[in-house]
Amino acid sequence: MAPRFIVRRRHKVGLPPGSLVPVEVQTLDRVSLTVMDYDAERLEEREVSTVAECLPFRDSPTVTWLDVVGLQDMELVGELGSQFGLHPLVLEDLVNTQQRPKLEDFQEYLFVVIKMLTFDEESRRVDDEQLSLILGPRFVISFQERPGDTFGAVRERIRTGKGRIRTMGVDYLAYALIDAVVDHYFVVLEGLGDWIEELEEEVVTEPVASTMQHIHRVKREMLLLRKATWPLREVVSGLGREGTSLITTPVRIYVRDVYDHTIQVLDTAETLRDIVSGLLDTYLSSVSNRMNEIMKVLTIMASIFIPLTFIAGVYGMNFQHMPELSTTWGYPAVLALMGVIAAGLLVYFKRKGWM
Amino acid sequence: MAPRFIVRRRHKVGLPPGSLVPVEVQTLDRVSLTVMDYDAERLEEREVSTVAECLPFRDSPTVTWLDVVGLQDMELVGELGSQFGLHPLVLEDLVNTQQRPKLEDFQEYLFVVIKMLTFDEESRRVDDEQLSLILGPRFVISFQERPGDTFGAVRERIRTGKGRIRTMGVDYLAYALIDAVVDHYFVVLEGLGDWIEELEEEVVTEPVASTMQHIHRVKREMLLLRKATWPLREVVSGLGREGTSLITTPVRIYVRDVYDHTIQVLDTAETLRDIVSGLLDTYLSSVSNRMNEIMKVLTIMASIFIPLTFIAGVYGMNFQHMPELSTTWGYPAVLALMGVIAAGLLVYFKRKGWM
Amino acid sequence: MAPRFIVRRRHKVGLPPGSLVPVEVQTLDRVSLTVMDYDAERLEEREVSTVAECLPFRDSPTVTWLDVVGLQDMELVGELGSQFGLHPLVLEDLVNTQQRPKLEDFQEYLFVVIKMLTFDEESRRVDDEQLSLILGPRFVISFQERPGDTFGAVRERIRTGKGRIRTMGVDYLAYALIDAVVDHYFVVLEGLGDWIEELEEEVVTEPVASTMQHIHRVKREMLLLRKATWPLREVVSGLGREGTSLITTPVRIYVRDVYDHTIQVLDTAETLRDIVSGLLDTYLSSVSNRMNEIMKVLTIMASIFIPLTFIAGVYGMNFQHMPELSTTWGYPAVLALMGVIAAGLLVYFKRKGWM
Amino acid sequence: MAPRFIVRRRHKVGLPPGSLVPVEVQTLDRVSLTVMDYDAERLEEREVSTVAECLPFRDSPTVTWLDVVGLQDMELVGELGSQFGLHPLVLEDLVNTQQRPKLEDFQEYLFVVIKMLTFDEESRRVDDEQLSLILGPRFVISFQERPGDTFGAVRERIRTGKGRIRTMGVDYLAYALIDAVVDHYFVVLEGLGDWIEELEEEVVTEPVASTMQHIHRVKREMLLLRKATWPLREVVSGLGREGTSLITTPVRIYVRDVYDHTIQVLDTAETLRDIVSGLLDTYLSSVSNRMNEIMKVLTIMASIFIPLTFIAGVYGMNFQHMPELSTTWGYPAVLALMGVIAAGLLVYFKRKGWM
Amino acid sequence: MAPRFIVRRRHKVGLPPGSLVPVEVQTLDRVSLTVMDYDAERLEEREVSTVAECLPFRDSPTVTWLDVVGLQDMELVGELGSQFGLHPLVLEDLVNTQQRPKLEDFQEYLFVVIKMLTFDEESRRVDDEQLSLILGPRFVISFQERPGDTFGAVRERIRTGKGRIRTMGVDYLAYALIDAVVDHYFVVLEGLGDWIEELEEEVVTEPVASTMQHIHRVKREMLLLRKATWPLREVVSGLGREGTSLITTPVRIYVRDVYDHTIQVLDTAETLRDIVSGLLDTYLSSVSNRMNEIMKVLTIMASIFIPLTFIAGVYGMNFQHMPELSTTWGYPAVLALMGVIAAGLLVYFKRKGWM
Repeated sequence: MAPRFIVRRRHKVGLPPGSLVPVEVQTLDRVSLTVMDYDAERLEEREVSTVAECLPFRDSPTVTWLDVVGLQDMELVGELGSQFGLHPLVLEDLVNTQQRPKLEDFQEYLFVVIKMLTFDEESRRVDDEQLSLILGPRFVISFQERPGDTFGAVRERIRTGKGRIRTMGVDYLAYALIDAVVDHYFVVLEGLGDWIEELEEEVVTEPVASTMQHIHRVKREMLLLRKATWPLREVVSGLGREGTSLITTPVRIYVRDVYDHTIQVLDTAETLRDIVSGLLDTYLSSVSNRMNEIMKVLTIMASIFIPLTFIAGVYGMNFQHMPELSTTWGYPAVLALMGVIAAGLLVYFKRKGWM
Repeated sequence: MAPRFIVRRRHKVGLPPGSLVPVEVQTLDRVSLTVMDYDAERLEEREVSTVAECLPFRDSPTVTWLDVVGLQDMELVGELGSQFGLHPLVLEDLVNTQQRPKLEDFQEYLFVVIKMLTFDEESRRVDDEQLSLILGPRFVISFQERPGDTFGAVRERIRTGKGRIRTMGVDYLAYALIDAVVDHYFVVLEGLGDWIEELEEEVVTEPVASTMQHIHRVKREMLLLRKATWPLREVVSGLGREGTSLITTPVRIYVRDVYDHTIQVLDTAETLRDIVSGLLDTYLSSVSNRMNEIMKVLTIMASIFIPLTFIAGVYGMNFQHMPELSTTWGYPAVLALMGVIAAGLLVYFKRKGWM
Repeated sequence: MAPRFIVRRRHKVGLPPGSLVPVEVQTLDRVSLTVMDYDAERLEEREVSTVAECLPFRDSPTVTWLDVVGLQDMELVGELGSQFGLHPLVLEDLVNTQQRPKLEDFQEYLFVVIKMLTFDEESRRVDDEQLSLILGPRFVISFQERPGDTFGAVRERIRTGKGRIRTMGVDYLAYALIDAVVDHYFVVLEGLGDWIEELEEEVVTEPVASTMQHIHRVKREMLLLRKATWPLREVVSGLGREGTSLITTPVRIYVRDVYDHTIQVLDTAETLRDIVSGLLDTYLSSVSNRMNEIMKVLTIMASIFIPLTFIAGVYGMNFQHMPELSTTWGYPAVLALMGVIAAGLLVYFKRKGWM
Repeated sequence: MAPRFIVRRRHKVGLPPGSLVPVEVQTLDRVSLTVMDYDAERLEEREVSTVAECLPFRDSPTVTWLDVVGLQDMELVGELGSQFGLHPLVLEDLVNTQQRPKLEDFQEYLFVVIKMLTFDEESRRVDDEQLSLILGPRFVISFQERPGDTFGAVRERIRTGKGRIRTMGVDYLAYALIDAVVDHYFVVLEGLGDWIEELEEEVVTEPVASTMQHIHRVKREMLLLRKATWPLREVVSGLGREGTSLITTPVRIYVRDVYDHTIQVLDTAETLRDIVSGLLDTYLSSVSNRMNEIMKVLTIMASIFIPLTFIAGVYGMNFQHMPELSTTWGYPAVLALMGVIAAGLLVYFKRKGWM
Repeated sequence: MAPRFIVRRRHKVGLPPGSLVPVEVQTLDRVSLTVMDYDAERLEEREVSTVAECLPFRDSPTVTWLDVVGLQDMELVGELGSQFGLHPLVLEDLVNTQQRPKLEDFQEYLFVVIKMLTFDEESRRVDDEQLSLILGPRFVISFQERPGDTFGAVRERIRTGKGRIRTMGVDYLAYALIDAVVDHYFVVLEGLGDWIEELEEEVVTEPVASTMQHIHRVKREMLLLRKATWPLREVVSGLGREGTSLITTPVRIYVRDVYDHTIQVLDTAETLRDIVSGLLDTYLSSVSNRMNEIMKVLTIMASIFIPLTFIAGVYGMNFQHMPELSTTWGYPAVLALMGVIAAGLLVYFKRKGWM
């Protein structure tokens, strides 16, 4: 069982809450910080290395997107926290990447945790990565565990000014990021769907012992998808509900759209589940059908030859007084008898529909 | 697995939301636009080719029904959107025909997405097609993917003035269209029901290996029905709820009627599900019963002949000093012994109820 | 699969809603109309043949019960509808007897649809019949499909003035009719319960192949019961809720009582379901136990005789130099060896607990 | 199937509601009526034989507990009803002891129906008895079907004045009675738990055919427990809710305590259910394991001896020209060959892990 | 079945509620009482032996934590109850350690019952211990059954003043204690997860009969976890809800954090459940695969040798007139025939894919 399924302890038992303990496995050498600051007219994009460099952007009236990739630098996270007024528990949740997707409203900012999913076609493995978003009044901070191209298209839209993104606020930016993540779920669904299609083919034409293993593996990979999607639904529905002033009404329509997609993902995942469990039934019944066919051949062969062999045995006995043995027609008569018995049994089995 | 079960990505990942990307497979050469404009006295019906031709109807105080068949012409959809004041996300949902049934209230108009289902008796396949409805204050726009005769009867009623349709408003027209769609669900249910009836017959009289496949296929086709119907229920119940002024009170009674039918569809689908799963059990137990019967024959034959063959084997041994061999009564005595053993075993098996 | 499980289309697809299409199979030659008009002092009971004859009763201040049996006369139903001010959809639902139980409040009258169930002891079949009730301010109209004696006792109580029925209003009459219907559900439950009891006996003592069929049949008949009862619960609970002035407070206590019975029916039906599914498990395990027992006999017989037969075969070989063959003790020694082997195997199997 | 699982008809179909029909099987010769009348200072306890004797107690300001055991005297129940102002439907529910647990608020009194459960260690049978309570402003009337000692301890506490019971009102008395009943549920749970423990032992060490029957029986007995407990939960939660003035605030804390116990009973029952269903799986897999082991022995024996017997058969043929037969080493060579084959097969099976 | 799964009776049936009956099995000789009294500046920590010694701390304005380990001293519990104004039912629940986790608000104090879980790696057993907390306005009393180090880290943080604990109130202390308990749940999850991982390995590589037992055992241990966690969720969610003034707003954020962890525990437990049930399927199918493989070998061997042995039997018959026997080529011809038959069957089986 991959460790993906077990939630490891949040912090060393006994540490005070809010202690920042780095996640053990790190895939990055350095944390990367990128700022995009834009409004309808201007756009500034810059790699920064310290939190201090971000502060002018934070204070500007334009939309500021700070993208943090890599979470191993506890000091940097701590400084970000104090400069942007984040609660210590938020920081703890940020660096501990085994959170359940959730939405927390801290009045001055929203804290959103969701899962980015990727499906590796090679290993047929669903992997998840935690994306944390801080949506403040004029800034969005996104935290990713590993570099990746999920947000490349959003970035491109900001650069080229395509669509509405440059003319709308930070809430639209947050929406666009979440939308990009949910869009990737469909890629995962497609990957799983293709795999299931293959298995379905295999089950019908050539079920082997490993088919069962594959069916169970696809089921397990789907667990991860469900685990990420069910709470996501609540998160997105929470964003769409009125009550926070950080999401404006025009953006709510877009959030509702993401909500629809989330439901579609769930729906499709459920359908796939139903199909996979049907697959399992088909596999088992197909295996047992093959076994039955083999057994039937044995049964029929044995049932035919057992009486014949018995007759041969009888005439192989060494009694001195067996009158049939000395007659000329004895041997052909016995052979004929055997033939009749065999034919009779064959006819009987055919009638019964066993052959 | 038919692609019907997988929701494909909404748009190329990374495109801004609201981008209109044509659905890949198109079944029509040209988009067809038909206008019906009527009130109690007058009726005008016309094929149009541009959006501009529709505008006078839109502005008239009469009921206007614009029926769009085929969704490949993105420009036309875009123009319709701007002329009728539709939200870009609505247009995106229109052309992407893998939406989940839903109802959205945009104050000035309602946006309804539902699924039209057809059951092909030949291939025994349930197919779905997306129907999108825009219900404005004085117009209804319907979008279908493929030409078909679902709305022929509604059109006929408008032409002949039968029933209430000419004297009532746009909300009644929208109701009539949805009602026509839901009515077709019963046709699908009947088709599935007949198929299940056949399978039931087959399971009891002549279960073969392909029966299992058919049971699984009927289960899968029913998945599509459920997938279309469950959200439909919410849509229709949403239409029936007070809260939108676009549906008037007298029409609500009719909507409630459609709601009842939706529930009936769901109910019947659940009943069919229960029957199919009972069918599967019956099939499996019937297959295993047949196998058991075959095994029983082998068991009984083998159990009877095994000791007899052993006795024959004993007297086939070549020991020089086997006094029985030289006696005259030896052979008939052994034959008699064999007969007694066989009879004894037969009686034993009969008593045990194994024969 | 009996057509009972499939809901057929409400009306020919495409007809305007509210069109009255007669139900296809009719079991009555003529529609029968009976009026009972009563208050605490007076009672008038009369067979009528036209709607016009009923009108004086409708207008009287006394309680009027119009009982319509048979639904094939569309004209009569239409006239009743216009004389009593019924909505066209109500009339459609009346004559289409495949409605789901429901309660509709049309302000001036309540429209109630429930199912009357009967259990035929001969064919062991649950049949349903639709009962529609119109509860107006001073009248109750009941529509039944077939003549039957369900309401005989209520009628008798009105005639003899037993109980409270003559001193109370129309709402109490409606309650009494529904109560009579729900009372019959217990008869159905008893019938099913007796059947299940029999099957239980059969499963334990003498499971045969048809047992499985019976278990499935009882399961199917129970589907119908559930299908009728679940929505009934909502109907009765709706009647008991405050909100309509047609049901008076003292009668609400009686309605609550019917509600309790409905819950009891559901409860018992669920218990029966649990028992039946346990029955299925017991049956399958009992069948497999019997099979196992048979196989065990074969296994043991074969396992004992196979080595013995092999030994006999060895000494049946025709080698010229087999020194054992010429010894006097050879034959008894081999027989003894065979006995020892057989005994050893028997002891081994006994020890293993296989015999 | 014991009649315990079927709810028999409430009254003869057609009788007016409120008709008092005695329950058929009666276990008591005479109804027993006991009055306890007490406050902090005084206590009067008396067996009475007529309702009239109870009336002075009813009118006194002290707490009055009237305990009725046996329900066959319809007249007495009727008189009690009229003297204490009970609704006719309450009387009907009292004497019909197949009610579902329920709570009804008649403003002037509360009507509570719950089930007393007993577990008979001998027959391993859960039996239920209906307890009906009327909680009026200054009196509690309890109706039991059979004499029993469930309330002995409560009575004792009243007599000795232990605990709070003498200083508190009628609502506390009602609570004490219900508490005594729920306490007994734990006894039933313990009985079932011990049984399940035994079965668990049996399944692991010595599964026999009757084990299956026992597992099913324990499942069935648990059905009764669930049937009594689920509605009980609603009853107790209803008593704890504010809204009725008959339960005072200090007593509500005690009611909440009973509620906790009810939940504990449900919880434990669910846990037992899970364990029993695991038991069934273990049993089935253990039976099939044993069968497989037996089959394996046959398979291995047969697979070893079949080729050997064939070889012996070959050299048992009577051809005149079989050169091996006349050689001196022929016999030992064939025996050696047989040994090699047997050893080879044994090694093969061992390697495969089949032995 | 361990007694852990059965809730034993709360008190001897019939005792008045609030009677303190000691739990039967006691693991401690003496009850240990420890007081920690602190604010931001001062800290006093002391072992006390009587309730009287605690009273000065109770009355001080500082935060007071009284930790009681061991519940056998009924007198001491009773005295604590009266000195701290606890309701008798609270005392009863304290000493009866089979409560379901719950939260009760007595206005002046909150009463919290939760379960501490430990997983013993050796015996692979989940054990639970009841923790009861009384959260008063200036004190927290915790009751544990057995000594243990769960709260060691909290105590250490108080001593060293690390984190916020010294500067915050009693509600933060209560939060810290509950947080410590929930943190331990992850340890249990990890232990179970590791076990499941091992089993998964075993199922795939070397399934033995005991694997089934282990799968069932891990399932059972997980029952306990679920039983503790589901109600815990309600408890923590209740603490987070506004309504009680004993939990201040800043602490609510921390409570929400614990709530998230509870949900994570539940989530992971559900995932493990899914994995275990998949494991069971895999095990069963793997066992049946192995059995099938064995059967296949028998089938194939038997099917090949049965006809060959028959032929040998035919030529072993002792008829005087069997012309083949005297020909020179008879023996090799028969051997060749046998070879051809064997080869033919082998080819047939290979083609069928049975080998």
